[in-house]
Amino acid sequence: MNQPPVISPVHLSMGTSANEPEPSPELADLYRGFEKELLVPLWTEIGDLMPHTPKSKAQPHLWEWSKLLELAGLAGNLVPVGRGGERRAIALANPSLGGRPYATPTLWAAIQYLMPGEDAPEHRHTQNAFRFVVEGTGVWTVVERDPIPMNRGDFLPQFAWNWHAHHNAADQPMAWIDGLDIPFQHYVESTFFDFGRDQITEAEHATPDRSRSQRLWGHPGIAPLSQLGPTPGSPLLCYRWVDTDAALTDQLELEREGYAATLEPGHAAIRFLNPSNASDVTQTIRTQFHRITSGTETAPRRQTGSSVYQVFDGSGRVTVGDFSWTVGRGDMFVVPSWFPLSIRSEASPSDSDSGALDLFEFGDAPIFEKLNLARTLVEDNR
Amino acid sequence: MNQPPVISPVHLSMGTSANEPEPSPELADLYRGFEKELLVPLWTEIGDLMPHTPKSKAQPHLWEWSKLLELAGLAGNLVPVGRGGERRAIALANPSLGGRPYATPTLWAAIQYLMPGEDAPEHRHTQNAFRFVVEGTGVWTVVERDPIPMNRGDFLPQFAWNWHAHHNAADQPMAWIDGLDIPFQHYVESTFFDFGRDQITEAEHATPDRSRSQRLWGHPGIAPLSQLGPTPGSPLLCYRWVDTDAALTDQLELEREGYAATLEPGHAAIRFLNPSNASDVTQTIRTQFHRITSGTETAPRRQTGSSVYQVFDGSGRVTVGDFSWTVGRGDMFVVPSWFPLSIRSEASPSDSDSGALDLFEFGDAPIFEKLNLARTLVEDNR
Amino acid sequence: MNQPPVISPVHLSMGTSANEPEPSPELADLYRGFEKELLVPLWTEIGDLMPHTPKSKAQPHLWEWSKLLELAGLAGNLVPVGRGGERRAIALANPSLGGRPYATPTLWAAIQYLMPGEDAPEHRHTQNAFRFVVEGTGVWTVVERDPIPMNRGDFLPQFAWNWHAHHNAADQPMAWIDGLDIPFQHYVESTFFDFGRDQITEAEHATPDRSRSQRLWGHPGIAPLSQLGPTPGSPLLCYRWVDTDAALTDQLELEREGYAATLEPGHAAIRFLNPSNASDVTQTIRTQFHRITSGTETAPRRQTGSSVYQVFDGSGRVTVGDFSWTVGRGDMFVVPSWFPLSIRSEASPSDSDSGALDLFEFGDAPIFEKLNLARTLVEDNR
Amino acid sequence: MNQPPVISPVHLSMGTSANEPEPSPELADLYRGFEKELLVPLWTEIGDLMPHTPKSKAQPHLWEWSKLLELAGLAGNLVPVGRGGERRAIALANPSLGGRPYATPTLWAAIQYLMPGEDAPEHRHTQNAFRFVVEGTGVWTVVERDPIPMNRGDFLPQFAWNWHAHHNAADQPMAWIDGLDIPFQHYVESTFFDFGRDQITEAEHATPDRSRSQRLWGHPGIAPLSQLGPTPGSPLLCYRWVDTDAALTDQLELEREGYAATLEPGHAAIRFLNPSNASDVTQTIRTQFHRITSGTETAPRRQTGSSVYQVFDGSGRVTVGDFSWTVGRGDMFVVPSWFPLSIRSEASPSDSDSGALDLFEFGDAPIFEKLNLARTLVEDNR
Repeated sequence: MNQPPVISPVHLSMGTSANEPEPSPELADLYRGFEKELLVPLWTEIGDLMPHTPKSKAQPHLWEWSKLLELAGLAGNLVPVGRGGERRAIALANPSLGGRPYATPTLWAAIQYLMPGEDAPEHRHTQNAFRFVVEGTGVWTVVERDPIPMNRGDFLPQFAWNWHAHHNAADQPMAWIDGLDIPFQHYVESTFFDFGRDQITEAEHATPDRSRSQRLWGHPGIAPLSQLGPTPGSPLLCYRWVDTDAALTDQLELEREGYAATLEPGHAAIRFLNPSNASDVTQTIRTQFHRITSGTETAPRRQTGSSVYQVFDGSGRVTVGDFSWTVGRGDMFVVPSWFPLSIRSEASPSDSDSGALDLFEFGDAPIFEKLNLARTLVEDNR
Repeated sequence: MNQPPVISPVHLSMGTSANEPEPSPELADLYRGFEKELLVPLWTEIGDLMPHTPKSKAQPHLWEWSKLLELAGLAGNLVPVGRGGERRAIALANPSLGGRPYATPTLWAAIQYLMPGEDAPEHRHTQNAFRFVVEGTGVWTVVERDPIPMNRGDFLPQFAWNWHAHHNAADQPMAWIDGLDIPFQHYVESTFFDFGRDQITEAEHATPDRSRSQRLWGHPGIAPLSQLGPTPGSPLLCYRWVDTDAALTDQLELEREGYAATLEPGHAAIRFLNPSNASDVTQTIRTQFHRITSGTETAPRRQTGSSVYQVFDGSGRVTVGDFSWTVGRGDMFVVPSWFPLSIRSEASPSDSDSGALDLFEFGDAPIFEKLNLARTLVEDNR
Repeated sequence: MNQPPVISPVHLSMGTSANEPEPSPELADLYRGFEKELLVPLWTEIGDLMPHTPKSKAQPHLWEWSKLLELAGLAGNLVPVGRGGERRAIALANPSLGGRPYATPTLWAAIQYLMPGEDAPEHRHTQNAFRFVVEGTGVWTVVERDPIPMNRGDFLPQFAWNWHAHHNAADQPMAWIDGLDIPFQHYVESTFFDFGRDQITEAEHATPDRSRSQRLWGHPGIAPLSQLGPTPGSPLLCYRWVDTDAALTDQLELEREGYAATLEPGHAAIRFLNPSNASDVTQTIRTQFHRITSGTETAPRRQTGSSVYQVFDGSGRVTVGDFSWTVGRGDMFVVPSWFPLSIRSEASPSDSDSGALDLFEFGDAPIFEKLNLARTLVEDNR
Repeated sequence: MNQPPVISPVHLSMGTSANEPEPSPELADLYRGFEKELLVPLWTEIGDLMPHTPKSKAQPHLWEWSKLLELAGLAGNLVPVGRGGERRAIALANPSLGGRPYATPTLWAAIQYLMPGEDAPEHRHTQNAFRFVVEGTGVWTVVERDPIPMNRGDFLPQFAWNWHAHHNAADQPMAWIDGLDIPFQHYVESTFFDFGRDQITEAEHATPDRSRSQRLWGHPGIAPLSQLGPTPGSPLLCYRWVDTDAALTDQLELEREGYAATLEPGHAAIRFLNPSNASDVTQTIRTQFHRITSGTETAPRRQTGSSVYQVFDGSGRVTVGDFSWTVGRGDMFVVPSWFPLSIRSEASPSDSDSGALDLFEFGDAPIFEKLNLARTLVEDNR
């Protein structure tokens, strides 16, 4: 709706100000006066504060799934889950964000781990959240008393202020990833948090194949008349892998048949939408899924705002600015604001027949779009 | 549109987790493993990260106008204005934000000072901005080549990515305040900045009584047919004091006549709106004006998000949480997120006949409203 | 968003004005003057023009499917399909609308019939349209060159200004119903119409199981990244019966399990939505589907605006104001503005096991909602 | 927001269908069957129902103000104002709309007349309305108990379902024009109407210079904090001539200074907006004002939907399709859907110094825009 500002192709470099005042005793007095009165001049700070293009405080980084899973498994044996700690979640800490549990300045990304028979207690918070399952089965997330199954490939948005708990009904531990806007809400100071019941009921320990939310809202283009009206978070609480996979498969088939369907050649991509308002599933976090066919390399793309990716299947090579890694199932990496990202799919002997590279992505783009701060630059040199 | 979450009246205290794991060599190993792999567990951080109610990093603070003006005047003699430093602006640095030039975590507030005959060079940036004039005259801000006069009480929004410069056409220095979302955009890493022409033209040095934007958009309820359509920032580039004053006067007169018009008894308040879309004048900053009649004390009000106030006229007593100050013309103070604010108007002998306390306010509320994070709590015990 | 006006419970009767002027020669002169100058006074017309509640020009009426089908079959033998006549469509003509082919003042409803091997030529128009299939198979509608299968229970929205044609690939005739806003657009005088190609290509005569639109947009809560953005008409061109049936079945099962899901007890109902903007599938026509369990009678409901229903399955008794009919598969009836509608499901020996009454509904509610004219009154005396 | 369909430049003529079936006894039987079953085929009706471009049922027509005023004055002596008749309003009846009091298919336009000391009783209705004053003074319209002065050039929107009455506080009769969407709402059957109090109070007979609504909302770009939030109708109940005139004057001056401001050279134009949502003042009616400088002729413009104009000042020549009239103060004319309109300003000796032609316009464009039916075509051959 709002026109994002056009990219201006050339930026003069602006570092130290060319015309900072000459040092003098009077100037020193002035600066002491500023300090005493809790003031800071613009002219000494502008280079850092108002750069010509975004300079992220974060850096690109890769976390290997095997390491995450191993440490989460150890935590499963050593760290209880209960009221106060709330969740056995272990967060990615970007190496240049001072040891804070922040994958990027705005995003939290964690592996969560639940032992057989364990419950994570009920709570609610203003932070928007989701779960994504790269492997495993057996856990149900109970949102507003509705038990939702979690299986490989399933995506579960968890909108702000909904009550939620988890229970593991299997005889195996299960791991999955959580994404939240914790760093953003910590920064803007909007966080409210409530404890819920310490125990969910026997009925909520049920293990249905589909949640009630799916039965109400999981039919394409169809809304229940009793529940109409835009809701700020998605009323559909599980996006099943069978649907995501079919949508990606259909795009690549349409491309092969000669129709516009993919984002770029060999690159199918979908966005998860709140079916009640056709917006992102939560107010702050966008979630998408990519399938890149074997041998395809995506065009380098920059955008304002940051993202976290998890490899769902296949293997390949990811380049983020000057960083580059070989990636495989479960690996997670971060793309800071305005860093160019390119992904190359490389089939390996252990891959599935298709050889495609599947990736789940989440990012903070809704914040930028709503505030008219979104910019994208695709450097397509092909 | 979106329903903000209801305030939950009781919050359990959540500090250190009640069930943190017992120290053990295995746990120490686990924590070393986390550190090595750049991971941080939730259970040790949740008390700080996800508090029950917002705990601001900022603190309430008052800056006296006389001090600001004195230091700005000294800077006028010592610090040139030109390309690189860009502006002779001196920012409020909240005492608990580590010496950064941030009035609150999201907001920049500064006094800007221009000597007779000086020009501040043209530039543009993604940061949203405005000017407000508490005293003085003689400067024109040139936005997209349209010279806009600045006089006591005038409010000039300055939407992201507009080219702008200033020139002082008088034989006196002039000071005013600037507000921007610099800290917010620095945090989310959305900042673009371009230098413009080093010199504006002779035509742009004109000193008209009204800017072209006012001639197009400054008529109540009337839009030019050639310029229709919602624009993300206000096309009206100056809100004149004569209009603001009349609106506040009218509200208090209506109240005296027995009609609903004021925000609370004795407290008139207006919001500046973008006439092309009836939203806030910029995408991130809300601007309002208050008039509190002599003897009136406003009900304590908390809201998510932070604000900066400048006293425009009159005197009184301001209470923000445990802080309290006597304030007069030009004084500026900050209200961090979720701190209760109450203002009492106290006529002093030097005040105008009315004895009312007039305050200009700006804050980051649009960010919270667009992301469904706005909450307000008015503690009215009367 | 907009608050519809509250129903005022009591309306004084307003027929002939109580204070019409006394007849006199001067008054007769005045009225002659009006007539000469093409003027009409309000005071003689207000009773008809501005009634206390809507008085529809239409009346409730039932058309039996067997009669529609028989006459359509005869037309299949006698009337060619081709350029100029465009479609072998036969429209319901409300008995009190002067013989015009208008089911209600705003809505067109017709049976369309295509013989084996026939094509209906390509055209486009500003009228919004849809097809619904109560029985039969073998026809594909080609929208913007995308062939869409039509089978029992399928709903195909057809947004304004899309090119479209039909071809019957089967060795049997096929009938279905068309709904359009022809009367409304004829009234407001907004109609544009273009002829397309006289023949669609061999490729467009294809008979795929799913249209390309379904492959792009037919996955619940999932949008193709290459096609994002709200579009005024639905990009999903077929809503399949399998999905509609599952959604209705799920609602009734949830009701039996004790959860809020149905519109009222025993009455499941869904709305078809444009997945790109979560609004109605077209700008003027709302489409819904109802399933009423055996023995259930719906509460009498009035609303501004008119609707047309077609029985999809089962049998029952329908009451619209003072009209009442026994209905069965394929039968169509109209509900004029502000007439109370109640439906009773009555299983008959020939019905399916479930005994439920299934009905497809279309109406002009989007017009009323967008213009702040929507009112609904449910008279629930139970 | 929605993309209106592009104009297709060439339209084949479509009158009688080229391939209507050959007459035969069987066909005659079929048509008798249709008639018996209340059915009408498309193929005999399509030429009228779905024309290639809008064919209006209305025709262009001019009503002279002197005639309107003379007959209204006679009615003032002969016809009482009171409950039942409600208003002494005399409506324009388009010559090709069958004698109905419809200026166009959707719009009502009337002269209303109130004798000294008279009251028009309070009522409310779902019809949207407004008043515009071409001459006279002394009447106050009381909307929701707020008395609003009416003077030459003032425009008073009157949103659906507001209570309203009029009183003439002067010792002269006063006339003005009313515009409503009566024909549209009669057609769509959305009309509700309530009688109010037979007498307004003494306080409501007050004659203030400004209404309370103007004191709350009549300040440019400024909203009262106590009344915020989009409302479906304008909270500003009077748009004063002084403001409209200033806006038009400013546009022409800016044009002379070389800036983009007018709609086309010599043609200033403004739209009245609801300041609470920046949309049209009512949900169905758009209101605009034009000033055309002496000697200027506007480019022929077609649009879907109809309009009514009243000359406010000056004189000129108006061409609507094949109709053309010389017009002067108070004269009213209608522009049916898709008829090209061009206006030429022609100063006459009796005109004011400026020689400009000022026109007030109202039309049904909001209906077309909200339903994605708006199209405009400007035939600029200069």
